[in-house]
Amino acid sequence: MQPKGTHARDVIAELKSRNEQNKRYTSGRILCSMCTSPHSVAKKAYQQFFESNLGDQALFPAAAEIEREVIAQLSDLLHGKDAAGFVVSGGTEANLLALLAAKNKTNLAQPEVILPDSAHFSFTKTCNLIGLKPVYASLDGNYRVNPSIVEKLISKNTVAIVGTAGTAELGAVDPIDDLSKIALRYNVHLHVDAAFGGLIIPFIEKAFAFDFNLEGVESMTVDPHKMGMAAIPAGGILFRRKEMLGYLKTETPYLSDNCHYTFVGTRSGASAASAWAVFKTLGVEGYTRIVSKCIKNAHVLARGLEKIGYTLLCEPQLNIVAFKAKNTKQLSETLWRKGWYVSYIPRYDCIRVVVMPHVKRRHISAFLADLAT
Amino acid sequence: MQPKGTHARDVIAELKSRNEQNKRYTSGRILCSMCTSPHSVAKKAYQQFFESNLGDQALFPAAAEIEREVIAQLSDLLHGKDAAGFVVSGGTEANLLALLAAKNKTNLAQPEVILPDSAHFSFTKTCNLIGLKPVYASLDGNYRVNPSIVEKLISKNTVAIVGTAGTAELGAVDPIDDLSKIALRYNVHLHVDAAFGGLIIPFIEKAFAFDFNLEGVESMTVDPHKMGMAAIPAGGILFRRKEMLGYLKTETPYLSDNCHYTFVGTRSGASAASAWAVFKTLGVEGYTRIVSKCIKNAHVLARGLEKIGYTLLCEPQLNIVAFKAKNTKQLSETLWRKGWYVSYIPRYDCIRVVVMPHVKRRHISAFLADLAT
Repeated sequence: MQPKGTHARDVIAELKSRNEQNKRYTSGRILCSMCTSPHSVAKKAYQQFFESNLGDQALFPAAAEIEREVIAQLSDLLHGKDAAGFVVSGGTEANLLALLAAKNKTNLAQPEVILPDSAHFSFTKTCNLIGLKPVYASLDGNYRVNPSIVEKLISKNTVAIVGTAGTAELGAVDPIDDLSKIALRYNVHLHVDAAFGGLIIPFIEKAFAFDFNLEGVESMTVDPHKMGMAAIPAGGILFRRKEMLGYLKTETPYLSDNCHYTFVGTRSGASAASAWAVFKTLGVEGYTRIVSKCIKNAHVLARGLEKIGYTLLCEPQLNIVAFKAKNTKQLSETLWRKGWYVSYIPRYDCIRVVVMPHVKRRHISAFLADLAT
Repeated sequence: MQPKGTHARDVIAELKSRNEQNKRYTSGRILCSMCTSPHSVAKKAYQQFFESNLGDQALFPAAAEIEREVIAQLSDLLHGKDAAGFVVSGGTEANLLALLAAKNKTNLAQPEVILPDSAHFSFTKTCNLIGLKPVYASLDGNYRVNPSIVEKLISKNTVAIVGTAGTAELGAVDPIDDLSKIALRYNVHLHVDAAFGGLIIPFIEKAFAFDFNLEGVESMTVDPHKMGMAAIPAGGILFRRKEMLGYLKTETPYLSDNCHYTFVGTRSGASAASAWAVFKTLGVEGYTRIVSKCIKNAHVLARGLEKIGYTLLCEPQLNIVAFKAKNTKQLSETLWRKGWYVSYIPRYDCIRVVVMPHVKRRHISAFLADLAT
């Protein structure tokens, strides 16, 4: 740390200039991110609640109320009736809390969780942390988990099974309805990781059954800071039954609140406020408009890629398009050099494009034109 | 979620009005928080880097650079030479990462950690999560851990010992120098939880030996979002040795970066930018000025309390003052009703006042006047 201070004006000027090195969503060239430009109201809302701390709710009752309303709105959207939950740091914390509650509830000596091969890497983190043995179930031809394999893997040690609604790599939606039946049959906790799809699927026409409408679904991850267009950090965890929170309780002996359920202690209320503001500003109508455009643009991209001779890995289920070339890895590097920030997925040897709201039709045309040459 | 949207202007107006229900640091009446009003530059800096994601550093190289610089500045301040680390969600994640690395390094079947009786509740969360058995060491008359008890508790299962530099309840600073000697003698990881004290102790005259200058200290938690006056969420974790990061590595198969070390995946670069901006704006001189005032005000409060007949639990070591009354719990409730937001600490049956930068001399005078009547 420097001995003397610098004028705040100069500090901000330096940050502004350094920020030029960061890529911009508005360029339409970030094709590898499940985040996007937060909605303009998210930033304004964040500023309003900048000082508030959800880790100390007696001091910040309005922030606590806003958080409860965000959870109620998500619960309503995902047919959770009176689901309980929190605005958390992101999908990783949400997935952790779900599996931790399931594990603590069963209290088995050698607990296992059944994960699709396509499960997000946050489950690897979680399993390593809490000593859950991951048991992987393979996928079908559309990169969705095979439910009959899941069923076969259930054992007396299974504390939970996980399905993903919108995999990070391909946007695939696992057959949550089948998983739900299995969960009910074997009385096992089913957690749906809808970090990405949770704020997409409710707004698309060809709906997937994936939420609390399915009776076996016990918990869901849904991140306002992805397609919800809220500010980072704004993840969400929902439990069908409030009792599950009891398995997450930690006493907080010096705070005005007497316990915490989340992993993170001090949490900004601004996260909840930003999600709340976007939900309220857009409503179902606004999200439907934005999501439809993304899905349509993904379709345009998929057809365009085929037209110029690329092979799709699979038909896109949401707004992620994955394709292969003759030398896919090399092509992805070429694209980065040309300023198209795509992902290369080693395990499928494919390029992945996430068609978020900042990716407009004109960007897709330009991308296809560049690929065609 | 409501079917139709609302005009953003009305949404922000509602948030503004709701925010009136939150307590304000500027009132000088929040006496129970280890957070404070972020420095004005923190908010401006946050806005600059609002969109950036430290979970995807190839897209946001400037945010990644700012994070590295924050870590380098903290490392420099805490004599870490080339300590490695991250800006994380807060003290809980930082403490988790420290103990997780220590646990993974030793890879024992029944790992234990030695914690002071006064350790923060985030260690309870961590122990529950990662299956570490907490072994508690009792305190001396000044509420500092007793090092000879710690030494006696070391076993072949000990993966780490923890000392706190600025306990959450009383601001006590454990004898880290003694713990360091013990850690070196038994070759055990010593983690210092300086979430609170890490940005206080370097700026006070009567210095405590508590940082990487002590050779046994292997990792430190230090939170810019507490006395650092950065925006929530801005915690910090530092490891003396970069190799320790290897024990935290998770592969990230679809991101432009190929691994993560933090628990949280998607992390806002704005957190790091806000810490960076405050460090740069204040420098050592600015922090010294602010911290000295807090320490002085805590002293004024302590003497004032004694003068009007209250008993201090102990002489304040940092800027936290704890005192007892005839009926302390009842008094704390009376104070809340009068709009003085103090903490009541059941285990010591005391009231705790954290004298943060928003608590000015005039607030202390008013508080003492209210207590005297």
